[in-house]
Amino acid sequence: MDNLGVLFLAELVGTAMLVLLGCGVVANVALAKTKGFGGGFLLVNFGWGFAVFAGVIVAFASGAHINPAVTLGLVANGVTEFGNAAVGTTVEVGPISVLTYIAGQLVGAILGAVFCWLAYKQHFDDEPEPAAKLGVFSTGPAIRSYGWNLVTEIIGTFVLVFVVIGFGRNGDASGLAALGALPVALLVVGIGASLGGPTGYAINPARDLGPRIAHAILPIRGKGGSDWAYSWVPIVGPIIGGVLAGWAAIPLLPIEF
Amino acid sequence: MDNLGVLFLAELVGTAMLVLLGCGVVANVALAKTKGFGGGFLLVNFGWGFAVFAGVIVAFASGAHINPAVTLGLVANGVTEFGNAAVGTTVEVGPISVLTYIAGQLVGAILGAVFCWLAYKQHFDDEPEPAAKLGVFSTGPAIRSYGWNLVTEIIGTFVLVFVVIGFGRNGDASGLAALGALPVALLVVGIGASLGGPTGYAINPARDLGPRIAHAILPIRGKGGSDWAYSWVPIVGPIIGGVLAGWAAIPLLPIEF
Amino acid sequence: MDNLGVLFLAELVGTAMLVLLGCGVVANVALAKTKGFGGGFLLVNFGWGFAVFAGVIVAFASGAHINPAVTLGLVANGVTEFGNAAVGTTVEVGPISVLTYIAGQLVGAILGAVFCWLAYKQHFDDEPEPAAKLGVFSTGPAIRSYGWNLVTEIIGTFVLVFVVIGFGRNGDASGLAALGALPVALLVVGIGASLGGPTGYAINPARDLGPRIAHAILPIRGKGGSDWAYSWVPIVGPIIGGVLAGWAAIPLLPIEF
Amino acid sequence: MDNLGVLFLAELVGTAMLVLLGCGVVANVALAKTKGFGGGFLLVNFGWGFAVFAGVIVAFASGAHINPAVTLGLVANGVTEFGNAAVGTTVEVGPISVLTYIAGQLVGAILGAVFCWLAYKQHFDDEPEPAAKLGVFSTGPAIRSYGWNLVTEIIGTFVLVFVVIGFGRNGDASGLAALGALPVALLVVGIGASLGGPTGYAINPARDLGPRIAHAILPIRGKGGSDWAYSWVPIVGPIIGGVLAGWAAIPLLPIEF
Repeated sequence: MDNLGVLFLAELVGTAMLVLLGCGVVANVALAKTKGFGGGFLLVNFGWGFAVFAGVIVAFASGAHINPAVTLGLVANGVTEFGNAAVGTTVEVGPISVLTYIAGQLVGAILGAVFCWLAYKQHFDDEPEPAAKLGVFSTGPAIRSYGWNLVTEIIGTFVLVFVVIGFGRNGDASGLAALGALPVALLVVGIGASLGGPTGYAINPARDLGPRIAHAILPIRGKGGSDWAYSWVPIVGPIIGGVLAGWAAIPLLPIEF
Repeated sequence: MDNLGVLFLAELVGTAMLVLLGCGVVANVALAKTKGFGGGFLLVNFGWGFAVFAGVIVAFASGAHINPAVTLGLVANGVTEFGNAAVGTTVEVGPISVLTYIAGQLVGAILGAVFCWLAYKQHFDDEPEPAAKLGVFSTGPAIRSYGWNLVTEIIGTFVLVFVVIGFGRNGDASGLAALGALPVALLVVGIGASLGGPTGYAINPARDLGPRIAHAILPIRGKGGSDWAYSWVPIVGPIIGGVLAGWAAIPLLPIEF
Repeated sequence: MDNLGVLFLAELVGTAMLVLLGCGVVANVALAKTKGFGGGFLLVNFGWGFAVFAGVIVAFASGAHINPAVTLGLVANGVTEFGNAAVGTTVEVGPISVLTYIAGQLVGAILGAVFCWLAYKQHFDDEPEPAAKLGVFSTGPAIRSYGWNLVTEIIGTFVLVFVVIGFGRNGDASGLAALGALPVALLVVGIGASLGGPTGYAINPARDLGPRIAHAILPIRGKGGSDWAYSWVPIVGPIIGGVLAGWAAIPLLPIEF
Repeated sequence: MDNLGVLFLAELVGTAMLVLLGCGVVANVALAKTKGFGGGFLLVNFGWGFAVFAGVIVAFASGAHINPAVTLGLVANGVTEFGNAAVGTTVEVGPISVLTYIAGQLVGAILGAVFCWLAYKQHFDDEPEPAAKLGVFSTGPAIRSYGWNLVTEIIGTFVLVFVVIGFGRNGDASGLAALGALPVALLVVGIGASLGGPTGYAINPARDLGPRIAHAILPIRGKGGSDWAYSWVPIVGPIIGGVLAGWAAIPLLPIEF
């Protein structure tokens, strides 16, 4: 397979893993009769954090963006190569590689949501509340106000992409920070705990749009609408936040001093 | 001792540690008058996660499968050697080594459950509800439906074995991911949080069957039946999930690009 | 830019990140209608811990004090250089460098609090209780008694600075302890869990004063007073604790044996 | 200072840190009007775990036993040197070095408990229930039965010492496991979650006896008795468990294969 195919597949697999486990923890906390029902926000935060952990591990071949906001943030930051040099999968950054990454992320997110639905099939069937079902798939605001919801998503995604770029600056200087999947997992636990209150922290357009598409398509018993009116917020907000973070990191997290 | 004996013992000790601590956290949350009573699902998830951590540490000599689904998943993935090359305990993969691993895991799981019962002896005695007692030993579904319960266990174990194989792909490329017992511990916290809602995440035939045998044999005051009707689900599901993950990892997590 | 400018900016960015995420988790737990409302003290502890994690990562160029008590504690310990030798940003310790660090920390803390307010804007607007609003920004005692509150802040900050100096002693000898941002993040989770009960663990004068200034200035709907009467305790206590820890570490955590 | 003095001081400082933070989290969860009141068992588990983390960091010069059961377990395992070779503080194992370690641990535990009392002084004063006050200092059984309480403490301490010895076997073979203070911290979180239900997991004679002595001596307002009738259980149990683990590790966690 050529490198673009490898990268597409890696992003697809990684984002599917992310969404399966991430939507899974919401299902566990929100749907009727599960063993984790009412398990609290910290359980949700750790579930999403370790979902990122698993997703990053299995997407090692592509450098594990598994999030269009990360992909676009890195472009804004001036990165010139995507992929993983250690396994020889690098490609030049350009419209084709960017679209390949985003396509893999979106398809993966849809698939991950399908598997989540299968894993919790009976609990979806037994859940009387359509809003709880949609909430497993996609985010929604605690207080609806598209402007402020957008602000929250911008700030949350800014933190994600800015600190992820920061990991790359901590290479030899501070050890663990730059190693592997754990730091970004813990970062996402932290963003969820700290900035997830108003909108449920999509901070990833694929993570929100993919499952929303799955929700619209799947024959979920007793489902309601997919709230398409809100759907642009967790797409546009994270893209703005990611690009701003990529730009801000040029002066604020410089490589040379 | 020859290597097969070392491997048998290491798997036995590791799985005993896993089950002692894993069933222990359920006992703490579920049995009457304990200090952790009603401590919540996240407490259970971390308890099982750190149980895996301790089990992997003490089973270092065998490479720490401590789970037949991992053993069979690695076979399906085409692994040719079991054991730990760093301490010189490797053996060829074949029917005898596979059976040695699984036998060690099953005996260890039974022993771990016995020690858990001893540690919580008074709380088993004071607990009026037979279902709570069985729940300490073995998993049971939130909504009984063998087909869907099987699907959930397949998906959960697929994630476990697929990501574990992924750890091995992250060697030099991403550092921490491939190091030691912590990553798999955190992975199991995440699988529990995200996919444990419907069936209680056995994701390990030995972890479920061993304690169920212990439950059937031990003179537990006021115990009920051992729910043998369900017992095949957390055996067959994890085996299918593990083998599928081993196969899927061949194209999806390739070693060469 | 000269090194002092780099250090100022790094401390500013790091402390802003710390306060955005740290105050954010309190907003999530305390303000009306958030998704994490009533999420518990452990959620707050992990939120602040991973806030430290993110702040330390992005302040790598300055060595990531992001806390005047750490800066002054290192001075008391006899450190002669600030900055990060690995990226060539070191400066001599003296009144100018100390003031540069503290100025960056304070400005960053104010900015971080402003962004937190923007992220939770609607929830501040909907929250009826002025005390809950102030609690997002600054700490306050559970039982008001300036002397004992001071003792608690001294002990908490002593632990922070003493163990942080200890990380530096664990270099090659014990590995992970000295690596990167994770250890101090976990330490802050622990200090919060263990010593945060009486005063809410400011343990950082900038973290408390900066947001208090922001609270006084920002047009927060329905806010009350900024409790300036208490404001000196989380400044003086952490400074005393940090300096005592720096002194105590000279004999108790020696470099040579 | 000669090496015995260094080791005494290191164990003292480390155990004081352990007990200050460990008893601190119990104070936070159990005493009236604290911010963490009723915070749950997982909060207690993480508090004690990160207390171990901080204690191990600052006791690096002695190899950080900070627990007589670890000291005696290592003797039973046949260890011939105590201390930290990396900083040149090793001494031969013998009655004098063992007594030096245990003396440092006990004095440190008493001091740590005193500082915990100071940090929570007002909350001790406001707490009406004498049992809650004693519970901050020392462990007590959920169901009193000295024989079974002893069994629980033996099993819990066996796990602690056995896995700690296991960390030493994972050196180059599995990386992270053997590095620094984090693994033992997470292990203690796990033991608490899983085996802390019946007796509150002393698993450390100094951790229990030192604070009990402090409780007996300190002028705590409205305190009750120090429950000396139970005090031998968390001394004898951990010693038996630690020594058994040291012996068991000789055949079960061998160095040579």
